[in-house]
Amino acid sequence: MYKVDINCDLGESFGNYRLGETEEILQYITSVNIACGFHAGDPAVMRETVKLALKYDVKIGAHPGLPDLVGFGRREMAISPQEAYDMVVYQIGALQAFLTTMNAEMQHVKPHGALYNMAAKNQALAEAIAQAVYDVSPKFILFGLASSALTEAGEKIGLQVAHEVFADRTYQADGSLTPRSQPNALITNSEQAIQQIIQMVKKGKVLSQQGTEVALRADTICLHGDGEHALQFAQLAKQKLIAEQIAIKAFH
Amino acid sequence: MYKVDINCDLGESFGNYRLGETEEILQYITSVNIACGFHAGDPAVMRETVKLALKYDVKIGAHPGLPDLVGFGRREMAISPQEAYDMVVYQIGALQAFLTTMNAEMQHVKPHGALYNMAAKNQALAEAIAQAVYDVSPKFILFGLASSALTEAGEKIGLQVAHEVFADRTYQADGSLTPRSQPNALITNSEQAIQQIIQMVKKGKVLSQQGTEVALRADTICLHGDGEHALQFAQLAKQKLIAEQIAIKAFH
Amino acid sequence: MYKVDINCDLGESFGNYRLGETEEILQYITSVNIACGFHAGDPAVMRETVKLALKYDVKIGAHPGLPDLVGFGRREMAISPQEAYDMVVYQIGALQAFLTTMNAEMQHVKPHGALYNMAAKNQALAEAIAQAVYDVSPKFILFGLASSALTEAGEKIGLQVAHEVFADRTYQADGSLTPRSQPNALITNSEQAIQQIIQMVKKGKVLSQQGTEVALRADTICLHGDGEHALQFAQLAKQKLIAEQIAIKAFH
Amino acid sequence: MYKVDINCDLGESFGNYRLGETEEILQYITSVNIACGFHAGDPAVMRETVKLALKYDVKIGAHPGLPDLVGFGRREMAISPQEAYDMVVYQIGALQAFLTTMNAEMQHVKPHGALYNMAAKNQALAEAIAQAVYDVSPKFILFGLASSALTEAGEKIGLQVAHEVFADRTYQADGSLTPRSQPNALITNSEQAIQQIIQMVKKGKVLSQQGTEVALRADTICLHGDGEHALQFAQLAKQKLIAEQIAIKAFH
Repeated sequence: MYKVDINCDLGESFGNYRLGETEEILQYITSVNIACGFHAGDPAVMRETVKLALKYDVKIGAHPGLPDLVGFGRREMAISPQEAYDMVVYQIGALQAFLTTMNAEMQHVKPHGALYNMAAKNQALAEAIAQAVYDVSPKFILFGLASSALTEAGEKIGLQVAHEVFADRTYQADGSLTPRSQPNALITNSEQAIQQIIQMVKKGKVLSQQGTEVALRADTICLHGDGEHALQFAQLAKQKLIAEQIAIKAFH
Repeated sequence: MYKVDINCDLGESFGNYRLGETEEILQYITSVNIACGFHAGDPAVMRETVKLALKYDVKIGAHPGLPDLVGFGRREMAISPQEAYDMVVYQIGALQAFLTTMNAEMQHVKPHGALYNMAAKNQALAEAIAQAVYDVSPKFILFGLASSALTEAGEKIGLQVAHEVFADRTYQADGSLTPRSQPNALITNSEQAIQQIIQMVKKGKVLSQQGTEVALRADTICLHGDGEHALQFAQLAKQKLIAEQIAIKAFH
Repeated sequence: MYKVDINCDLGESFGNYRLGETEEILQYITSVNIACGFHAGDPAVMRETVKLALKYDVKIGAHPGLPDLVGFGRREMAISPQEAYDMVVYQIGALQAFLTTMNAEMQHVKPHGALYNMAAKNQALAEAIAQAVYDVSPKFILFGLASSALTEAGEKIGLQVAHEVFADRTYQADGSLTPRSQPNALITNSEQAIQQIIQMVKKGKVLSQQGTEVALRADTICLHGDGEHALQFAQLAKQKLIAEQIAIKAFH
Repeated sequence: MYKVDINCDLGESFGNYRLGETEEILQYITSVNIACGFHAGDPAVMRETVKLALKYDVKIGAHPGLPDLVGFGRREMAISPQEAYDMVVYQIGALQAFLTTMNAEMQHVKPHGALYNMAAKNQALAEAIAQAVYDVSPKFILFGLASSALTEAGEKIGLQVAHEVFADRTYQADGSLTPRSQPNALITNSEQAIQQIIQMVKKGKVLSQQGTEVALRADTICLHGDGEHALQFAQLAKQKLIAEQIAIKAFH
């Protein structure tokens, strides 16, 4: 039988600003990536999101990002590997303390946005991030773009790694995601998005924008939590995956 | 024989800005309070400061402050107890992760600046902060102004508490520090400052600005790390305390 | 015939976070207070909001706040009058540059949130803010809580002042707003809120929570732009005021 | 007779952090670039620096940077031209308001750090920045790296442009500065640095690291204000330039 984890970025509210259908989405996922205050999130939001995740028995991971609140961590910055290391350690720790206050354990770490994208391509950044995760706890699972520099760095250092795939993003022939700046970056048709992930989980491959089949491992699927149809999509995806005999389960 | 801890706020540099004679001061103190990025400090500075503290075998504590970098955490803010709780948990965790990467343990937590001052007077804030410290680890020692709402809240919840006294600040009849906005708030004469702490350690009392003697417990002395004469004063204080048969030792 | 201005705080989005029905609300108001990046708003949001205000011919004012994004500028901070002066000059200038790029003139300045509330009570802060506004341009109108320290400071320095009243907030016997932390701070019934402003405009008085009538001048009414019913309320208020022969007009 | 302007980045202190020998350096320069709060500077520092510049009759320019305080605006960020436009308008306005309060006029705008470097190479960013400067005031002089995309964009839109050269940085054959990450990026010998600028002013050329002569226009020389020997170098440069019959004068 097939098996896959479904993860979602949540806890992205900030102060007076609300973002994402946190409580609803938590009912359809198995792992949650919680923002840690650099690109989104604040201490109150982190506490509330951890509490909600525990309520719905969803495994918790840190979602460290670049220090760019106004850009939501989506603008690449020329940071050094040491800077990447430091900001990942800091953010993991900040979230972990909230888990500690609730006697909970962290399952994983997934870099956010531009940090995630840079780590998928840049070996030095990928290694620094993997090292940061390992140094805080070798038990953490590192989530990264499937078949990327980040998953490779995680495997090399000895971390358990979850290869992540996207339902609603298209792929390039080299396995990278089509940049959001390009047309066809997003798959807006829900059925098509769900077929893509079923294909990835069962066959271990995806059809690229160039028409070639790209091999990848689909350990975890990224759902979006802040779009208009996030919740409907989450419901539909869960239902379709189960119908395809794919068990939806976290790692720990 | 008498015994006292000497602590200092360090790790207060930020990005391109350098503040404090970190490495030099570490040679004269037994506990260090490291800024956690809200009022001062950044992830790189935190890592470097933890590393230096370990090098000089100085016990490490988190120094959480208000989210006010431009005001250096010295301006009181009308935060709720829940906000105090959350920002303390967050900042302790952020620092703790750096200690974890170096296999080190945190000894204590000392709120910074306006958060420290508000917690000395405001019972609800004091209890929220004590609860935050306790929830992250009941083994942490809570540093607070001697005989204040904060030390009381810490004792009530069952934390080990260190009553802190100041060498270079004058006291009011109610045991509070003379506000910096007032004349005579600071003791600029080094000999006089050192006599004040010797008196506090040996006799358990201090002469207030009103001329009355105030009883207080002197578990730890706060040294300043960023003044012009910080280093000279640290050297002199250490020498004079030892000459007075006062052992300088941390808690753990 | 009676006459009143209706103002609303807009431009409170930030980065990826959207807040307020900006374009819809602009159709029901005559003056807009645009956040300047300290408590809300960012350069892109400021530009877009200025552009929209010009499209709907709404007079534009700066809405400077405390440097507290996570608290939305609603937490009082112990700032000095000089700090208040500096942050108001800075924020007015930042907004004014966007108006300059569109050949538009600024009409007014209204402090936001905790800065507004502190300036209503604290004479030194009120005078610093009035001085800042005057120094950038003596032609600006200063918006402040009716009959407060801020309107008094503005009048004293020679600025045109707009006394502001609230539809959906209750008043205390001394003319201050009932703090949000208290029950009955908000008037949630729309009809009642509108009756309160009609009474204030026509009679120059309001019934306080203590049952006494408080005299105040109602030059401008504050509408809220981010509540659930903001838009419906704006429509209803406009319609009812016109029905009562109250002309809705800005100052310049 | 030859003529050149000498400019320096000042006003880079922030809150409790002091950086640069502002008052001393102002006595040796003719134009000052004042940080505007994004990469350095805060409202109080801006006011104080403007006041000092006026005291020493130094022409004032805005020094807008990337929103990256911890990185001091030195890390490239993948911002869009629109984002560059908006952040430049905002920062110019913020500084200009302080000049307005002192009845002073702004002379120029010079982007800072990574924004300066990106604008030297990236035409779209350069044009957005030139447009922002022009839209706030077509009278402003745009300072940019000599013979760069930024000076070209400024000239194209009709701004007066000052081609900037560096005393203590080496040049590449294409006229760009040797990146700081490379050896030989900096000229640490003062005599050599001063000879380079004399050569650039008098001959309009510089010897590149590749051994070729590169033609460039030297309208203004950048002095650094925060190094250890900043002040001594400023004094020496002024003296040597005058000895070479080069008049040191600002533009307006």
